[in-house]
Parts: sequence; structure tokens; C-alpha cells
Amino acid sequence: MNALYDRFAGPARAALPRLTPAESAVVLRELARLERSAGPGALRDGRPAGSLFERLRGLAAEVPERLYTDSADVLLRMHEIAGSGNLQSNLSSLPLVRACFALGLVADGAQSGAGPAELIVGRGHIAPAFHAEHYVRGTLPFTPLATLHQGGLPGVVDRELGFRNTMRYSLGVGVAQAVGLAWELARRGTDRKVVCLAGDGELHEGVAFEALRFAHDVGLTNLVLVVDANAKGIEPLAKPVNTGYLAAYLGRLMEADGRDEWAVQAALGALLTLPGPSVLVCRTSKGEHSFRPADGTARGPARPSFAATAGRMLARHQERTGREMAVFTPDLAARFGLRGQVPYTNTGLAETLTVGMTLSLPEDTLKVVATDAMYYMDSLSMLTEATTSVRNLLVLAGRSWGAWGGAHNATNLLGLLLHTRVYEPVTPAEFAACLARLGRDPATAHVVSMVDAVFDPPGEDCSADIDGGVWLTPPGPDPADVAVVTFGYAGVLVDEANRDLGVPHLHCASLTPRLAPADLAVLRGCRRLLSVEYNGARGGFGEGLRSRHLLPVEVHGVRRDIARQVHARQLPLHGMAPDMLRERLARLLESREAGRAPAHA
Amino acid sequence: MNALYDRFAGPARAALPRLTPAESAVVLRELARLERSAGPGALRDGRPAGSLFERLRGLAAEVPERLYTDSADVLLRMHEIAGSGNLQSNLSSLPLVRACFALGLVADGAQSGAGPAELIVGRGHIAPAFHAEHYVRGTLPFTPLATLHQGGLPGVVDRELGFRNTMRYSLGVGVAQAVGLAWELARRGTDRKVVCLAGDGELHEGVAFEALRFAHDVGLTNLVLVVDANAKGIEPLAKPVNTGYLAAYLGRLMEADGRDEWAVQAALGALLTLPGPSVLVCRTSKGEHSFRPADGTARGPARPSFAATAGRMLARHQERTGREMAVFTPDLAARFGLRGQVPYTNTGLAETLTVGMTLSLPEDTLKVVATDAMYYMDSLSMLTEATTSVRNLLVLAGRSWGAWGGAHNATNLLGLLLHTRVYEPVTPAEFAACLARLGRDPATAHVVSMVDAVFDPPGEDCSADIDGGVWLTPPGPDPADVAVVTFGYAGVLVDEANRDLGVPHLHCASLTPRLAPADLAVLRGCRRLLSVEYNGARGGFGEGLRSRHLLPVEVHGVRRDIARQVHARQLPLHGMAPDMLRERLARLLESREAGRAPAHA
Repeated sequence: MNALYDRFAGPARAALPRLTPAESAVVLRELARLERSAGPGALRDGRPAGSLFERLRGLAAEVPERLYTDSADVLLRMHEIAGSGNLQSNLSSLPLVRACFALGLVADGAQSGAGPAELIVGRGHIAPAFHAEHYVRGTLPFTPLATLHQGGLPGVVDRELGFRNTMRYSLGVGVAQAVGLAWELARRGTDRKVVCLAGDGELHEGVAFEALRFAHDVGLTNLVLVVDANAKGIEPLAKPVNTGYLAAYLGRLMEADGRDEWAVQAALGALLTLPGPSVLVCRTSKGEHSFRPADGTARGPARPSFAATAGRMLARHQERTGREMAVFTPDLAARFGLRGQVPYTNTGLAETLTVGMTLSLPEDTLKVVATDAMYYMDSLSMLTEATTSVRNLLVLAGRSWGAWGGAHNATNLLGLLLHTRVYEPVTPAEFAACLARLGRDPATAHVVSMVDAVFDPPGEDCSADIDGGVWLTPPGPDPADVAVVTFGYAGVLVDEANRDLGVPHLHCASLTPRLAPADLAVLRGCRRLLSVEYNGARGGFGEGLRSRHLLPVEVHGVRRDIARQVHARQLPLHGMAPDMLRERLARLLESREAGRAPAHA
Repeated sequence: MNALYDRFAGPARAALPRLTPAESAVVLRELARLERSAGPGALRDGRPAGSLFERLRGLAAEVPERLYTDSADVLLRMHEIAGSGNLQSNLSSLPLVRACFALGLVADGAQSGAGPAELIVGRGHIAPAFHAEHYVRGTLPFTPLATLHQGGLPGVVDRELGFRNTMRYSLGVGVAQAVGLAWELARRGTDRKVVCLAGDGELHEGVAFEALRFAHDVGLTNLVLVVDANAKGIEPLAKPVNTGYLAAYLGRLMEADGRDEWAVQAALGALLTLPGPSVLVCRTSKGEHSFRPADGTARGPARPSFAATAGRMLARHQERTGREMAVFTPDLAARFGLRGQVPYTNTGLAETLTVGMTLSLPEDTLKVVATDAMYYMDSLSMLTEATTSVRNLLVLAGRSWGAWGGAHNATNLLGLLLHTRVYEPVTPAEFAACLARLGRDPATAHVVSMVDAVFDPPGEDCSADIDGGVWLTPPGPDPADVAVVTFGYAGVLVDEANRDLGVPHLHCASLTPRLAPADLAVLRGCRRLLSVEYNGARGGFGEGLRSRHLLPVEVHGVRRDIARQVHARQLPLHGMAPDMLRERLARLLESREAGRAPAHA
């Protein structure tokens, strides 16, 4: 009955132990207000009363007390409470954000037309800076801020939280959104300007260039690009933003000290009154990309994720084989633990080039590209160019699905390209087996899904036959009545869930396994079969078993858009938490008498 | 036993009627030489004697007579014989090509290290200009030239035909290949330069920017970019190439009259001797993009392909609904017949932006993007951004698979994105039904595969239920023993093949049809079922029927890399010519007694 309460109360109550007494008091007051009133968060005549943002604004008005007056303090607290995020990116843009507020560019809700121009936020991950500034200005309550990344407040810009645009998948999208909007306004005959707030890193993306080139060539006069030039992505940029390039396409270029909100406001205010397109380069500075709580006791010693051990495993492979290796990553060396392990080339935020860099190398060189699985989705033609013409190609596809979400079945799409095979190893031996397989079959690109999670490896693995399956729980002497077949990381989750159930469990590292006849015979004999993959179900592992073998597998996988939350919170939202899997397996056992199950779980 | 003969003899003999008497005489002499000798095209010690290019070179030496001394004449004859191609693009670059030959940049075969620099040809479709120049210089025979686009000589650069690089899929790939090679040479400590021959249109591609930005930021000093600035893609470019941009990333910029090979040679020669990166902008001119034989009698009146009727069908839809429409295409308006039918925006050669342009438009506007199916493959993240946040999105995906090849299952990948459904209409009524369906379900992006072929529509279609199937050949009163189910254009081909066989034939316009229970019952009752799709089999229509319904469908689809040939020659290479389909259907009938068929056809 109260969407606002339903959304924020749970995560906010979970955050209470991490709040100061004053913060707790305010959150409880706000929640009480929400809960008892049919007020701003409730239904009016059976319909939500205004947008989510408007309702939050209403709540802020009802509980007007402010705990902080400086949005930098609010940002720090949001990240301390969340325990993760991009505090420094937010701080680097904060003066720019304040200038946008001061100039009236931040709309009240999603409606456009107010203020002197439209604002598109291309640096999507600085949404928290806007939320913090809204808080100190009295237009957001504290409660949502305490739920950042934890199921309440998303970390990226979203129309329902007062932004003009929503960003989900790609860096550089914001510039395209801004140019698309500027074109639409021009087409309608207005000269209303569009301000696009972008980062110097995201300008590396090819699509940002495509947008600026188009804007120039068709003569758009209403685009104002504001660049947070902090000269840093995750690693420092190789060179500062190229002002010659920007001036060649946008004409008027101004620079400002981006650490000084008044300087930014003055310069941007001037550009808004001048005719024609322009660019404002704000020189800012940024600390460490990823937030780590200053209080080291808050977390145990950081154990690396499986993905972060990739560098070490590659180094071992190189020692063992002596093979020349060329590693390319678009600013994600840290995620794969490359530094200090293997030489690598940081190609900047330019995924398509990263793949393209493999096209001209000697045949025998092991070519490694390493980025997030979803970032390949804008490079599949280039990747096909590589899979059809390059030998010894290893594609590392990170699997995090963190705050940005992702293409839920990116792995499946990669597997559909010509001359590719996809694996998701969960032990160093399986990873090594993928590399050994590539050595034996160098004309096939090996796509290796690398899970960004910390987990204990299962007792057995597929390293002896990376294309086959291994029974983590073997069937007993009698013919099995039910069984579960898993792909990659899901095998780890199911293994835990299955500990005291004993459902026969076949684990595969290959997305399209070549099962041994004996294993296939066991599966064919089962009355009910479940497949589990922490992966998009459509076109994935389980559907492949149905299609290739006509096995009546009940497919358990990700079916909807991936949840934009930290790993532990993602799992239950996709039915992948071990207790949920345990329940799913138990149902399999209980229904021995129920006959065939429906086609899909 | 003679690979050279096997490859060129068939297409060359087929071309004989289109050759002059002198050309015919030379071709027959070359073929005779090839056929009777164990010479340059044959095996030596059971292995091919040198690369394809080296063997062709050997043949040219053995039959040294030259019919033409001007490569422009040769190019014209190649295109007259082929009947299609990009003559004007080749002519616009011909002086640049001649300058590359004169400077010793064109390697003899694929080996590198010779000549003053490495040459990467980014304008992949000017391969014929190199072949023509090779011919007049005595390093290629005439026979392969007479087989352009007809199964002998490919129209794009290929390592096996004397180029340093192969291009298959993406515009802009060549610049990435050049930068990757320059980076590799720098890493090895040489200062050998890489010359990249690019077009001004392909510089619109985001990846070309990614490559130049990277080259600049990591300080590559060995890249020389040569731009054929003819100011024209298929349509004229909105603005000439931006020299300020190029100078901002490459430093030294020279301009030359690109119609004057001596001017190009002098400027490029100078740049090769100077230290550091540079760019040479060659001002050229270009006529009509697509070659049409001057002799109008060679072809009947041009009947438009189905894809080329899209503009008219969209115009009708707009008249009918009055809905606001925004159409974006990356220079492919002609292919979809947009001009004169609906207003459209040519976004230049920038597919990702083309998709991105839809993100900021009003909800009710019908957003249409129109390009080749394979060109979406470098924009699937951006497309997911659109399919998750935009309403009323129509994605027209051209299906030609011409000289460039393509991602054989691009349509399947598009169908795996969130919130998409894929159709391949073959009648105007089916196309209209797709649009009507989008009107009823605006939150789902409708991907409409548009076939670039001329064909007669089948007698029945799926317009009454675009998600279902329609029997083009209905089953008789007795239960059907065999049946064929087809997707889109394959239904037209099968309908022709099936004319006197009478195999029950269910035609579907949807890639993932929702079959009526009665139709499904017919299929379930069949002992043998065939599915046919002119589409990648992996993850496609037939495999979907197996996966969703556990039907033992024998899947007939495209399994290997798509053939880079004109449509009529592609069909037999993928088992899709009606006589081959007829034979396939007949086998289905003959094996009534043979029991279940294997999983895949």
C-alpha cells in the first residue's frame, strides 16, 4: 500500500547499526512518518501520488531537520554506511554538481522545460553527489541515502530519482543521450540548450566521439559539454583530455578550476547565455577510485575475488609455457589482478579498440583481453573479426553485475559468435585447463567468465576434462530419480545448498558441455532434472541441454534484468541464495510422485 | 589437386559471355596453363606451392600479355563483368593506391618487413583497386579479376590476396588494426612505420577515434594515417573531414590533391621520412556509390528488394496512425528506400550513436533505427540501454550478407536482448502486422529483419497472427507423418522447393513463434520434422523449437561463416537454393520407414 515505505524501510532498518545515533533517530522518524500516514508515500485514489522523487521530496518537507549542511560530509557518510562505491568520483564532480544546482539546472522531478537548460548527467555514477546536495537543500530525506547500493537507492542516474536520463549499461551513453535530446529540441525549433556533464575517461568511448562529431556536422548549436577532467579513470589517464579535439568539434572552449564551484558556476553561466555550442573543461582531482572504509576494522582482510586472481594465474601459465603474451584491458587491471603479475596495456575506456588491438599480433602470441562481460556487448562485430582471423585469443569476461547492472546473458551471446567456446571456471585448475585447451585448439577463441566473488572452491572440478562434467554429489548405486546440472559458479552455490540433501549434482565448467555417454545416460534416466546457472536463462546452459539433448530440464537461471546491487543482495533477487536453492532442490525430491514437470522452472 | 584452378575456373568460365574476345582469349590461355601444368597453382610435394597470391603472381609471369595498361580501365572492366560493386570508391582511392605501389608499400604476398613501412588498408572495399594495379604491373593474371564478387575474387582486403590485413565485419577496423600493429612494432623496439589508408566516412566510426586517441595518448610515433577525403559515404557527408580533430591527435597534418598520384606520392614519401606520427588528407572525388552498368540493357528494370520498400511501408503506417516518427540510419537510407517516403536523419557511419539517438525522445514517438543486422553487433549494450528504457522502438535489421559477409546469427543475438522480439516479414501485410504489434506492446523493442532480395510473396502470410504460424501447404486429412517449419524468408524458398512435393509447411514470421495448440499437435504427431531458416542455426529458430517444445526438429540453417558473395551465389553455398531444399524435403519423405533422425540435419 505504501511503495515508498516498502522500498526503503527494509534496507534502512538493516543500515541502522552503521548509523550515528542522530542519523538513526532521523531515519526512524522518517520511517514512522511514512508508515503511519497516508501521506506523500502512499496512494491517492489508488494511484501513486506523484513520482518517487516527488514523494521523497514531500517526506523531506515533513521531516525538515538537517543533520549535515555540507554535501561532501553527506557523501562520505553515504559511502561509509554503504561500505562501497565511488566516493572520490563523486567528490571530484561535487563542485560541478553544486554549480548545476545554483544555476537552476537540476529539475524538480523528471519534468523538463524548467530551468535555463536541460541537464543530462553522463557521469552516471555521480548520482550520489546529486542526492547529497538534494539532502542539504532539503529536497531529499535522509532515509534513502542510508540505503545506497543496498537495495534502496541506486548508485547511478535514474529518471525516477529526479534525473532527466537513466543510465544502465554503457559508458559514453550520456553524451549520446545529450546529443539526441539537443537534436530533438533543435528539430522542434527551440534553441533551448542541453548541458551534458561528462567525465574525461568516458570521452575515450567511441560513441562519445560519434555523438560529438554528429553534433558538429549537423550544426547543432545548443550543446554545452561540461567535462570533469580529473585525469583519472581507475588508473591515471595516459594523457589529459585533448582540448584541441574538443575545440575542433564544439568550437568555444573554456577552462575552469573544477575544485572551485564559483568558478564553474560563473563559466557555465556565461556559456549558457552565449550562442552556439561550447565545452567547459573543469580541472578537478580525484583520489582512489573505489571507496574503502577508513576504519579498517569494519572489514576483515580483503580476500581477492576469483576474478582478481586472473593475473597470478596468467603469470603461472606464462612461466609454464614460455609463450609470448599480450594483455589488453580497458582500465580494469585491478579487477583482474594484473598489476605486478603480467605486463598489460591499459587501452583506456575503449572496449572495441581493446578487442581490435589483438588483430595485428603474431599468430603464436597469446592475446588476452580483459573486461566486464557486458562491455563486450558493444564490440561483438570487432570480436567476430578477431574470432575469425586471430589465433590464441583468450577473452576474460568479468562477472560482477554490480551497481551498473549488466547484460544478463552476455556470456550466452559471446558463446554464439563464430569460433568461440565459453567456460566459467571456479578453481585455478579449471582456469589452467581452459588455457591448456586454448593451446590445443588455438583457432577457437576461449571466452572465460571470471566471477567477481569470493568463494571456497568445490571439492572436485572439471580440470581433467574441461568440456565434460564432474559429479560433485555422485548418484548412488540405484538409478537416479532426480538430478541437478550446474554451470560454473552456480555449481558452488548449489553444492552448498545441496550439502545435506544429496541430490546427484553434475557440475560443468563449459557453457555447452560435451557430456560423457555415462553421464548423459544418468540424466536421461531421471524423472526430473534441474539445471542451475547464475546466468541468463535465455539461450544459456539449461536451454542448451534441452535443445541439444532434448532433455526435459527445468531451467533455473536469470530471467529478468539483472539487479543493480552488491553481490550478496543480488543472489536472493535472482533465486540464487543457497537457502533458496536448497528449497528448490528439496521441491525436486518431494515431487517424486508428481510426474513430469513443466518445461521451465 | 589444383586449388587455384578449382577456385577460379568455374566463376571465370561463367563470366566468359561478358568478356571481350581478347579477354576471353587470355582467360582461356591462363586456365589452360593452370589446368595442364603442375605449375604455380599446383601442389609441390603434396603442399600448396606458396600463398594464393604468390601462385597467382607466378601465373601472371607465365602469361605475361597485358590487355590494359591503365588500372582505371581494368577497374571499370572488373565492375562491368561483375555487374555490381563500388567502382567509384575504388576510383577515388586509385591515385593513393598507385602512390603506395610507387613507394614500395605494397608487399609481395603477406610477408612483412619489406618496403619502407607496413601498409594497412582500412578502406577494405578498395581491394579491387589494388588488384587492378597489380594486373597492369604484371603481378596478377586477368582470370581472378573476371570473378570479382562471383565466388573467385573477394571484394575486400584479405591476407591471402597480398594484403597485410583481412577485413570482414566492421568499418573502422582498419584503423584499429594499424594502431595495434604500430603498438606491437613499438613494443618490439623498432621505429618502423605503419601507413593506414582510411576513408573519411569510416573515421565516423567510434572505434577509429578510440584507436587514434590511444595512439596519441600512449605516444606512438610510427603511425601515418592517409585519408581518402572524398566527402561522400553513400550519401554526401554532412561536413568534410575535421582536420582540427586529426591534427589534435596526430600532430603533423598535410593535405594533398588526391586526384594527383604524384602529389600523393610526394607528400606520403616525405611523411615516411619524417619522425613522429602524421596524417595526410587527400582531397578526392567520388561518383555514385554503387556501380550500375552503363549499358542499361544488361539488366531489366530494377525491381526493389523487400528491404527497399521499408520507407514506403513506414510512410503508409504514419498516414494510418498519424503517429510522430523519428527515423535514424547510418548512411543506409537508400537500402531501406527512405528518401521521399519519410523524413530521416543520416547519422553518418556511426551505428552506436544511431541507436543512442533514440534514448531521449518523447515516449510516444515511433523510433526507427535502420541498418544492416551485423552492424548492430557493435551496439548491443547501447541497444539494451534502449530496449530497457525506450518505448515504441522499431529496429530494422537489413539482411544482405553481401560482399562483406556478416554475423550469421545476428538476428538470434538481437532476439536474446532484454525486451525484444524478432520478426522477418515477407509481405507488406506482415510488416504492417509487426508495426501494429509494436503499437499494442510498446515496451518491447520489435526487431524486424529486412531481406535484401527480390522475391514473390507467398500466397498466405502470418499477418492475421504475427506471432503464430500459417500453413503454406496444409496437412491433409490424415495425420501428417512429416512436416517442415520455416522462419521468414526461408518460407519463400521452401514454398518454391515444395511446390510439387506437398510436404506440410508451416511458415512463421516470428523467430520465437507462439504456435497454436492445433499446429503444435500436428508437429508433435510427425515422425520427422525439418526446420529451415536462412539464418544462423545456433541459437536460432529451429533450436528454439527444440528447446521450448522438446520437438525433435532437424535444424537446417546457416552453420558456418556466411559466404561473402552476391545473394544468388550465397544461397547454394548455404544449402538454401530451392533445388537443394527440394532435395532435402524429398529425403524427408523417402525415409518414412527409417525411424527417428539424428538431432541435427
